[in-house]
Amino acid sequence: MTEHNLQDTIALLARTPAALNTLLRDLPDVWVLRNEGENTWSAFDVVGHLIHGERTDWMVRAKVMLQFGEDKSFERFDRFAQMRESQGKSLGQRLDEFGRLRAENLDELRGWNLQPADLARRGRHPVLGVVTLSQLLATWAAHDLTHLHQISRVMAHQYREAVGPWTAFLGVMQCAGHSAPP
Amino acid sequence: MTEHNLQDTIALLARTPAALNTLLRDLPDVWVLRNEGENTWSAFDVVGHLIHGERTDWMVRAKVMLQFGEDKSFERFDRFAQMRESQGKSLGQRLDEFGRLRAENLDELRGWNLQPADLARRGRHPVLGVVTLSQLLATWAAHDLTHLHQISRVMAHQYREAVGPWTAFLGVMQCAGHSAPP
Repeated sequence: MTEHNLQDTIALLARTPAALNTLLRDLPDVWVLRNEGENTWSAFDVVGHLIHGERTDWMVRAKVMLQFGEDKSFERFDRFAQMRESQGKSLGQRLDEFGRLRAENLDELRGWNLQPADLARRGRHPVLGVVTLSQLLATWAAHDLTHLHQISRVMAHQYREAVGPWTAFLGVMQCAGHSAPP
Repeated sequence: MTEHNLQDTIALLARTPAALNTLLRDLPDVWVLRNEGENTWSAFDVVGHLIHGERTDWMVRAKVMLQFGEDKSFERFDRFAQMRESQGKSLGQRLDEFGRLRAENLDELRGWNLQPADLARRGRHPVLGVVTLSQLLATWAAHDLTHLHQISRVMAHQYREAVGPWTAFLGVMQCAGHSAPP
């Protein structure tokens, strides 16, 4: 297992918008607009969720942590905000917005020039309790990966019938989603 | 659930090499060379596996099916060939090779101008029994997604400790992999 390295985290965070853009832009609707059933998300919904995170979660929490330490809990993250906020926007517009917000956030993060002592700073999560800035930033990157994992699963789900008996050999078709609590 | 549509399948298949290239090329080693433990694959290994599939699996099986129908079983696919074949190649070289082979295969597939009656043609899988050409081609696309799902899980695994208590909220960290039989 790996110690958290801020440069590795930033390298991944910087890559995700372009990777999603390359994977999803102009792909047929079957891959990007369909979900896994009622109250589940399409790839389109996930990009909206990632946008909302850039606006209200990661950097906002990092600033609360640096300013208030353990004295002030983070706001709870609204996991359904994208259902209200991004209506009327196309997938292309969402991908553009995600890329722009992520680039702005990483510019600001790099500008902080965080040192090991900064990464050890502590804050308070409303459910998880005491967490460190290092853990928050590592989670930002892992959160990208959990949604890439989800998007590939949601897309594969659309071909569950089409693959016929091969469904037994495709790990992604066995994945139940492992949904996280809010 | 979705009927198989060949154009949707080709659209996804055409996208995967560029998406993996954008996600993985020049990323730090922690993300691309580490695996989930003994006898598991890194992102680097997965790209080798995808190359081997382009060479020996999908189009080869499609041709066997079109030529011999149910009379001849496909060769079994060697899921570990990439451990032998791609030694000494860099990730960048593997990504280039995957992109080139995929583009060549899709050029050939488009040239066949398959019609619904062709997609209903049947063949024989050595384990699964009778399958259709439609199912084979849908599986080719879903196989890309199962490995994108795997890559995102393998990458997230590297930060299992780094995210601290957030691991409980990250679905990808709960994913056991759902390994398929050979």
